[in-house]
Amino acid sequence: MIFEKYDKILFMGDSITDCERARPVGEGLWAGVGNGYVRCVETLFNVCYPELYLHIVNNAQNGATSADGVALWEENVMSQKPDHVVYLIGGNDVWRQFDSPTVRDGVIGPEEYGENLRKVIERTLGNVKSMILMEPYFIESNDDDPMKVKMKEYALVMRETAKKYGLLCIELQSEFDEYLKYRHPTALTWDRIHPGWTGSMIIARKFLKSVGFDRPVIE
Amino acid sequence: MIFEKYDKILFMGDSITDCERARPVGEGLWAGVGNGYVRCVETLFNVCYPELYLHIVNNAQNGATSADGVALWEENVMSQKPDHVVYLIGGNDVWRQFDSPTVRDGVIGPEEYGENLRKVIERTLGNVKSMILMEPYFIESNDDDPMKVKMKEYALVMRETAKKYGLLCIELQSEFDEYLKYRHPTALTWDRIHPGWTGSMIIARKFLKSVGFDRPVIE
Amino acid sequence: MIFEKYDKILFMGDSITDCERARPVGEGLWAGVGNGYVRCVETLFNVCYPELYLHIVNNAQNGATSADGVALWEENVMSQKPDHVVYLIGGNDVWRQFDSPTVRDGVIGPEEYGENLRKVIERTLGNVKSMILMEPYFIESNDDDPMKVKMKEYALVMRETAKKYGLLCIELQSEFDEYLKYRHPTALTWDRIHPGWTGSMIIARKFLKSVGFDRPVIE
Amino acid sequence: MIFEKYDKILFMGDSITDCERARPVGEGLWAGVGNGYVRCVETLFNVCYPELYLHIVNNAQNGATSADGVALWEENVMSQKPDHVVYLIGGNDVWRQFDSPTVRDGVIGPEEYGENLRKVIERTLGNVKSMILMEPYFIESNDDDPMKVKMKEYALVMRETAKKYGLLCIELQSEFDEYLKYRHPTALTWDRIHPGWTGSMIIARKFLKSVGFDRPVIE
Amino acid sequence: MIFEKYDKILFMGDSITDCERARPVGEGLWAGVGNGYVRCVETLFNVCYPELYLHIVNNAQNGATSADGVALWEENVMSQKPDHVVYLIGGNDVWRQFDSPTVRDGVIGPEEYGENLRKVIERTLGNVKSMILMEPYFIESNDDDPMKVKMKEYALVMRETAKKYGLLCIELQSEFDEYLKYRHPTALTWDRIHPGWTGSMIIARKFLKSVGFDRPVIE
Amino acid sequence: MIFEKYDKILFMGDSITDCERARPVGEGLWAGVGNGYVRCVETLFNVCYPELYLHIVNNAQNGATSADGVALWEENVMSQKPDHVVYLIGGNDVWRQFDSPTVRDGVIGPEEYGENLRKVIERTLGNVKSMILMEPYFIESNDDDPMKVKMKEYALVMRETAKKYGLLCIELQSEFDEYLKYRHPTALTWDRIHPGWTGSMIIARKFLKSVGFDRPVIE
Amino acid sequence: MIFEKYDKILFMGDSITDCERARPVGEGLWAGVGNGYVRCVETLFNVCYPELYLHIVNNAQNGATSADGVALWEENVMSQKPDHVVYLIGGNDVWRQFDSPTVRDGVIGPEEYGENLRKVIERTLGNVKSMILMEPYFIESNDDDPMKVKMKEYALVMRETAKKYGLLCIELQSEFDEYLKYRHPTALTWDRIHPGWTGSMIIARKFLKSVGFDRPVIE
Amino acid sequence: MIFEKYDKILFMGDSITDCERARPVGEGLWAGVGNGYVRCVETLFNVCYPELYLHIVNNAQNGATSADGVALWEENVMSQKPDHVVYLIGGNDVWRQFDSPTVRDGVIGPEEYGENLRKVIERTLGNVKSMILMEPYFIESNDDDPMKVKMKEYALVMRETAKKYGLLCIELQSEFDEYLKYRHPTALTWDRIHPGWTGSMIIARKFLKSVGFDRPVIE
Repeated sequence: MIFEKYDKILFMGDSITDCERARPVGEGLWAGVGNGYVRCVETLFNVCYPELYLHIVNNAQNGATSADGVALWEENVMSQKPDHVVYLIGGNDVWRQFDSPTVRDGVIGPEEYGENLRKVIERTLGNVKSMILMEPYFIESNDDDPMKVKMKEYALVMRETAKKYGLLCIELQSEFDEYLKYRHPTALTWDRIHPGWTGSMIIARKFLKSVGFDRPVIE
Repeated sequence: MIFEKYDKILFMGDSITDCERARPVGEGLWAGVGNGYVRCVETLFNVCYPELYLHIVNNAQNGATSADGVALWEENVMSQKPDHVVYLIGGNDVWRQFDSPTVRDGVIGPEEYGENLRKVIERTLGNVKSMILMEPYFIESNDDDPMKVKMKEYALVMRETAKKYGLLCIELQSEFDEYLKYRHPTALTWDRIHPGWTGSMIIARKFLKSVGFDRPVIE
Repeated sequence: MIFEKYDKILFMGDSITDCERARPVGEGLWAGVGNGYVRCVETLFNVCYPELYLHIVNNAQNGATSADGVALWEENVMSQKPDHVVYLIGGNDVWRQFDSPTVRDGVIGPEEYGENLRKVIERTLGNVKSMILMEPYFIESNDDDPMKVKMKEYALVMRETAKKYGLLCIELQSEFDEYLKYRHPTALTWDRIHPGWTGSMIIARKFLKSVGFDRPVIE
Repeated sequence: MIFEKYDKILFMGDSITDCERARPVGEGLWAGVGNGYVRCVETLFNVCYPELYLHIVNNAQNGATSADGVALWEENVMSQKPDHVVYLIGGNDVWRQFDSPTVRDGVIGPEEYGENLRKVIERTLGNVKSMILMEPYFIESNDDDPMKVKMKEYALVMRETAKKYGLLCIELQSEFDEYLKYRHPTALTWDRIHPGWTGSMIIARKFLKSVGFDRPVIE
Repeated sequence: MIFEKYDKILFMGDSITDCERARPVGEGLWAGVGNGYVRCVETLFNVCYPELYLHIVNNAQNGATSADGVALWEENVMSQKPDHVVYLIGGNDVWRQFDSPTVRDGVIGPEEYGENLRKVIERTLGNVKSMILMEPYFIESNDDDPMKVKMKEYALVMRETAKKYGLLCIELQSEFDEYLKYRHPTALTWDRIHPGWTGSMIIARKFLKSVGFDRPVIE
Repeated sequence: MIFEKYDKILFMGDSITDCERARPVGEGLWAGVGNGYVRCVETLFNVCYPELYLHIVNNAQNGATSADGVALWEENVMSQKPDHVVYLIGGNDVWRQFDSPTVRDGVIGPEEYGENLRKVIERTLGNVKSMILMEPYFIESNDDDPMKVKMKEYALVMRETAKKYGLLCIELQSEFDEYLKYRHPTALTWDRIHPGWTGSMIIARKFLKSVGFDRPVIE
Repeated sequence: MIFEKYDKILFMGDSITDCERARPVGEGLWAGVGNGYVRCVETLFNVCYPELYLHIVNNAQNGATSADGVALWEENVMSQKPDHVVYLIGGNDVWRQFDSPTVRDGVIGPEEYGENLRKVIERTLGNVKSMILMEPYFIESNDDDPMKVKMKEYALVMRETAKKYGLLCIELQSEFDEYLKYRHPTALTWDRIHPGWTGSMIIARKFLKSVGFDRPVIE
Repeated sequence: MIFEKYDKILFMGDSITDCERARPVGEGLWAGVGNGYVRCVETLFNVCYPELYLHIVNNAQNGATSADGVALWEENVMSQKPDHVVYLIGGNDVWRQFDSPTVRDGVIGPEEYGENLRKVIERTLGNVKSMILMEPYFIESNDDDPMKVKMKEYALVMRETAKKYGLLCIELQSEFDEYLKYRHPTALTWDRIHPGWTGSMIIARKFLKSVGFDRPVIE
C-alpha cells in the first residue's frame, strides 16, 4: 500500500467529503472526520491496519467549487502539512450550471476547472509524498443526460491533468454506473450527488483498492 | 368556470400539496394553505376573481400514499364538508418502490392504488358538487427511466378510474415534460418530485386552466 | 418586453421587498429571492419566459428608509453589477412619522426623500440598461386618512423625480384602491403595509405589465 | 367602589385580555395576569388600594370569539368561583368577517353574538356579586369604515343585552375615538385591535373609573 | 410640568431601569423602553399628555454600578443628545458588598460613588435642559438591616451631590417604606431590589409627581 | 449512625430539596439526586462511608406545599419502598401568605399544616425503619420579621407533631441564624429561602450530625 | 450465507445497537437503522449483495436490560414479523451493578439473565427462520477487572442458553481483546462499552463472517 | 492554614477544574466557580471559615494541556493578580496519546510537560504568596495499565519540578487508588478522568487537608 506508518492523509473537497466534519480541523475524537466516505476510509484502516496509525484529516468545505478549492487551499490543506492529499472536486462546478441556469456570475467552464486543478497541484507537489485526485460523478443511469455528459467532460479534464503531473487519479463514475444495474438512483440518493451511506462505501472501497489496501475486511 | 361564489374547495394529497399548511385545518390567515401550488391557486383566485370569495382549504399530509389517503379521508376531507375535493396522490406509492427497495412491507401495487382511489371516490360522490383528480408525475426527461415508466402506469390507473366515475382528471406529466425542454430537472427540484416554486406554478396553472379560469392574470 | 436574454435584474427596497431573502445575496437555490412579490416575478418569468434565463436578485433590507437606501446602495446594488435596478422605497419614511410620533430624530421629510432618490439615481444611471422606480402605497380605502394623504405626497415626489430623469415609474396605490372595492384592508394585511400573498401578486402583476410581459399565464 | 376587601375579580376575553397570562390560571407571581390592561388594573389597585387585597385573575384565551367564550366558560370562569366577572368579547366575531372573508364556516352574526352573551350571563348570575361587560371596539378614526360600523353594531348588542340583565356595561370606542384626535391609529397599534401599552392603559382607566376607583394615582 | 413639547428625556441606570429595553437604543415601537418603571412613565405621559409628544429613551444597562455609569456615559447618554437626563444608580454599588463579600476587587465606597456622580454631572450640565437624580433604595422594612443602612448612606451622598449642583433629586426609600406597611417585602419582589410591576408604578408615580405631572390618571 | 448497609433513604420536600433531580425517580447516574443538599448528603456518605452503599433517592417536587405532599405521597414516596423517609416541608405554606397576599384560595394555616403532616406520618409509620422531619426556616436575621415569626410557628407545629409520634425532628433555623452573624442573608440567597451551595451544605451537615455521621470529612 | 433474497432481519438490543435509529421503526430512508454496527451491516450488504435486497430493521432501545428486552419483545420484535432476529443484550445487566452499586432495586443476576433470554427465545422460535444471539463484552484489556470477569460470566450464560436451543451465538469479547493489542481501550471508547465507529465495524465484521458473508468488500 | 483573611485563590487547570465556571472570570454569584471540586472547596471554606472571606476564582479551561496552560497564563491567571495559584494539569497531555494515537501533531512528551510547568512557575513566583501544584491522576485500579503508568510518570515530573522550586505539590492518585478498594472505577466516572461529585469531593478534601484546613465539617 502506498501509505506508511504514521502518514497524515488529508482529504479536501466539497459536501460529498465534508459530511459534518469537525471544525476547524476535521480529525480526532467525536467523529472529527465527518460521517461520509472519509469515515469509511478511516474506520477500515483502523480495523484492518491498526499497526499503521494512519492519521486521517477531513478539511473539505460544503458547497466548494474548484475555485473555492484554490481560495481555501493554503488554510485548509497546506497549513496542515499533510503527507498525502486526496482531492475530490468538480461536482458543484457542473451542478450550478444545471440547477441555477439563470445565475450566470461565477460559472466555471472546463478550462477554468483545469486551471484551478493545476494551481493547487503546483502548490502542493514537492511538499507531500503523494497527491491523489478523485473524479466528479453523477449518480444517473441515463448516459444521454446532459448533466452526466458534462460531468464526464470535467472528469476527463481531471484525468488528463492528473496524467500530466503523474498523479494517481481515481475514476468513480463507472462504480456508480455498475451499481445502478441493481438500484434506481433514488435508492442511493434523492439528489443524485450526495451519496448516502451505501454510496460513501462505494467511493471508499474504490479509493482503498486504488491505494493498495490488500487485507480482507471480513475473513 | 366550474366554481361558484362561496364554494369551499378542499385539496388533499401528499407533500407536493401539504407544503407547511396550517394544522389542524389548512385555511385562513398566516399562510394557512401552505406555500406550494395551493398557495398559487388561492392567490390567483383572490387576485382575479375577488368577487367569488372562493374558500380554499389544504388538508394534505406529508408522506401520504393512497392507502394513507383512505385512512385519513374521513377526518381530513369529509368532516370539512367541502363543495369540491381535489386529490393529487400516488407519488409516494411509486417512489418508495424505488428509493427503499429493501423495505417490502406496505408496497402498494397499481391494483391496490386503483382500489384506494375507488374507496375515496365512492365515499365522496353524492356529498360534493365535484371531485377532481390530479395525476402523479416524475420530473424526469428520460422516458425510459423505470420510475417514470412506473409513474405513468399509476397515472393511467388514475385516469381510467376517473373516467369510470366521470370525474375531471388533470394530467401533469406532459406539463413538466414540456418545461424540461428548457431546463434540466435539477433546476426545478433536486429530488425530481417536490416541485419548488416554478413547478408549483406549473401545476397551478394547469389546474386553473382545467377548471375554466378564464381571466388574464396580467393585463 | 424591456428585459433581454440573460439580463440581471436587481430589486432593492424595504421589508415589502425583502421577505426573508437569502444573505448576503438574494438569489439562486432555496428561495434566495425571498417569498414576497419578487418571488412572484421570478416564478412567472421562469414559467412563461423560460428561454430568457432572467437572473433575478433581491437585495432589499427590512426596515430601510430612503436614507438607508443611500447608505446601502454601494454594497447592496452597485457591487452586484446589475443590468436593471428596481427600487420600491418610501413606506418607512412616512410610516415612522405616524407610528412613532414622539421619536423625532431622523424624520425624513419629502424634500429629503426626493434628495435621497436623486443620489441613488445619479450613482446608477450610466451603469445599467434601465432603472425602474415603484411608488410607495398605503392599503387604506379612506382617502382622507392623513397617512394615506402623506404617502401619496411622497409617491408624487418619486413620480416627478423619475420623470426628470426619464425613468419608468410604477404607480401602485390605484391597484390597491381598486382591490379594496372587493375586500376590507385587513383581508390583505393587518398592518396595511406588508402586502401578504395576494398583495404581493398585485404588485408583481402591475410590475410585469409595466415592463411589457405579454404572454398569458394561464392559457 | 364596587369591589370589597378580598374580592376575587376574574377577567375573561380574547387576546386583548390574555396578553401572555399564566396557565392554567392567570394569577399570582411572575406576571400571572399577563401584560395587558389587566396588568394595569392589578397594578393600580395594588398601588392605590393596598388594604383591599383584591384578587385579580386573568383567564382569557387568545383568539376567542363569543362562541369560544361559551365553550370555555365552565372551565375558565365558573370553576374559579369568582366574586366578580369582567368580560370583553366580540372583536374576533367581527374581525374574522373582514380579514377572512372567504372562510364562511363559523361566522357569528349579531344575533348569535347576543345569544352567546345571554348564555354566559345566565350561567353566571346568581353565583357572583357582579358581572361587568366591556364592549368591543376598533381603533379607527373613520366612522364610515365598514368594520368600525359593524363593531359598533355588536357593541350595541352587548349594551342592550347588559341593560336587559341590569349589568354594568363599559363603552370603550369613544375612549379611542377621543385619543385618535392626538394620534394616528398606527401609533397605538399596527393592526387596530391589539391595544399596546398606551391602549391598555386607556382601557384600564375607563374600567377603573366605571367601577368607582376614586383615589388619585399621582398626588 | 418641567417638560415641554417634543422634549427628549433619557433614563440611565441599572437593571431597575433596563427591564429588557431595546438595543442599541431603548425607544420606539415594540416596547423599546423596556417593561419597568420607564414603561409606566411613558404610558402615563402618552395617555394624559398626548399633545406634548414627549420622547422617552431608556438606555440603562443591567448590572451597572456608578463606575459603569461613568464608562458608558458617552455612548449611552451624551451621544443621544437628550434634553433631560434621569439617573437612578447605586443599588449595585451597595448590593455587591453584601451578596459577594469575598469578591473584594472593584468595591465602590461612598466617596468613589460620589466622585462617579460628579463626573457624569459635570459632563452633562450645560448640554441639557435638566438632569434629575433618583436615589437608590432597599425594599426592606427593618431599619437596622445593615444593607438598608448602607443604602441610605449612599442615597445621602447622592442627595448632597445633587444639592451642590442644584439638581432635582428624588427620594424613593420612603415610598417603599410607606408601602411596606401594607405588604411584606417578598410581595413586591423576592430579592428586595428589582421592583416588579407594583414597585415600578410606585417609582413612576413618585417621579411623575416630582416633575410636576398634574393631570388625573383616572377621572 | 442510624443508617445500615444497603439502606434506601428517600428525601421528600419542595424546591429546597428538588434542585433539578432526575425524573421520574431522583437517583443514580448523572446527578440523579439533584444539586442541592441531597447531593451534599450523598457525596459525603459516598466519600466517608463507602462500605455502607447507602441508596439515596430524591423525589421532592418544586413548589410543593404540605398539601401537595399529601397528594404526592403515594407515588413519590410509598411506591419506592424506602427504608427511611426524610421530609422537609412548610416553606411554601408560609411564603405564599406573604408573597401572594391577594391570592386567598388554598392558604394553609398551621392547623391544616399539622394535619397534613399527620396524614403522611401515619401512612408511613410501620412501613419504614425511620421517618425524619426537617423544619422549615427563613434566612433572615431580623427576629421580628413577620414571615420569620410565622415560619417559626410552623416549625414548632412540626416539632410537636414529630414529638407526638416519636420521630427525629431536625431544627434548621438556628443554623442559619448562627451563620448570619458572618454574612448578610443576600450572600446566601437573594430570596432568603433557596439556600444556594453554602446553605445546602449547612443543611446537609446538620442532617448528617443528627443521624450520627461520625467520621471526619477532612482528616 | 444464511440470509436469502428479501429476508427481513431485525436487530434488537441496547444502546450499542440503537445508535439514534428511527422511531417507531428503525428502517428505510434517512439513516433509519441508526449509525452503529447495524449501519455497517446494512451498508456492506447493500454494497456487496445488492441482488439480495435484505431488509434490515433496528428496533433496539437505549438503556435496555434483558428484563426490558422481555417487556419490549412483543412490540419491538414480534409485531414486525421478521424472518431473522439478532439479539445483543446483557451489557446493562452487568454495568449497573458496577456504576450504580448503591441502587440495588432491579439488579439482574445471571440466573435471571438466563431466564430472560429463554423467555424471548421461546416466544420467537417457530415464528422465524433463525434467531441469532450476540454476547455482551467489555472493552478492557485487564482480565482480572471484576466487571470484565462478570461480563464473561453473563456471556457464558448466553452461550449455553443458545446451545440448548441450537441457536447461532456470536462471541465478541475476543475480537476486542485482539484489537486491544494495538490500541488502549480509550482509543475505541471513553466508557469501554459504546464501541464508536471502529468498534462498530469490529462487531459488524464478526457478525457478517458468522452468517456466511463471503464476498470481498474491497477487491 | 496557609490562607489568610481576604486572600484571593485562583484555580487553573483543565475540564476537571473548569466544570461550567462563569466566563470571563469564574467567581461570584450564580455558581461562578463551576460545579466541580472548586465548588466543594469554596463551599467548605464558606461554611467552616466564614470569617476569612476567602476569594475563590476558577479560571480553568476545558481541554487544556500544559501547553495551553502556558498560552493562557497571562490572561487567565496573572491578569487576575491572585494571592495564591493552584494548578492541576497534565491529564490531557497523557490522554490524547492514548485516545487519539493516530493524531501525532502536538503530542507533549514528559520533558515538554516539565518545561511547560517551569514556564508558568517562573512567571508566577515573586507575584504571589504561594503557588500549589496538583498532580494528574487516572481513576484505574490496574497498576499495569499503560495509561496509568504514563500518568504516574507525568505526576512524577510535576512532583520533582515542584520540589525544585519549593512548591507544595499535592498527590491525588493514591486517594483514588484507596477509594477503588470500595468501588469499581465506573462508579466514579465512565471515562476514568472526569471525577463526578464523589471524585470532586475526594480531590477537594485532599487539597484542603494539604493547605491546613483544620476545622471539622460535621461536629
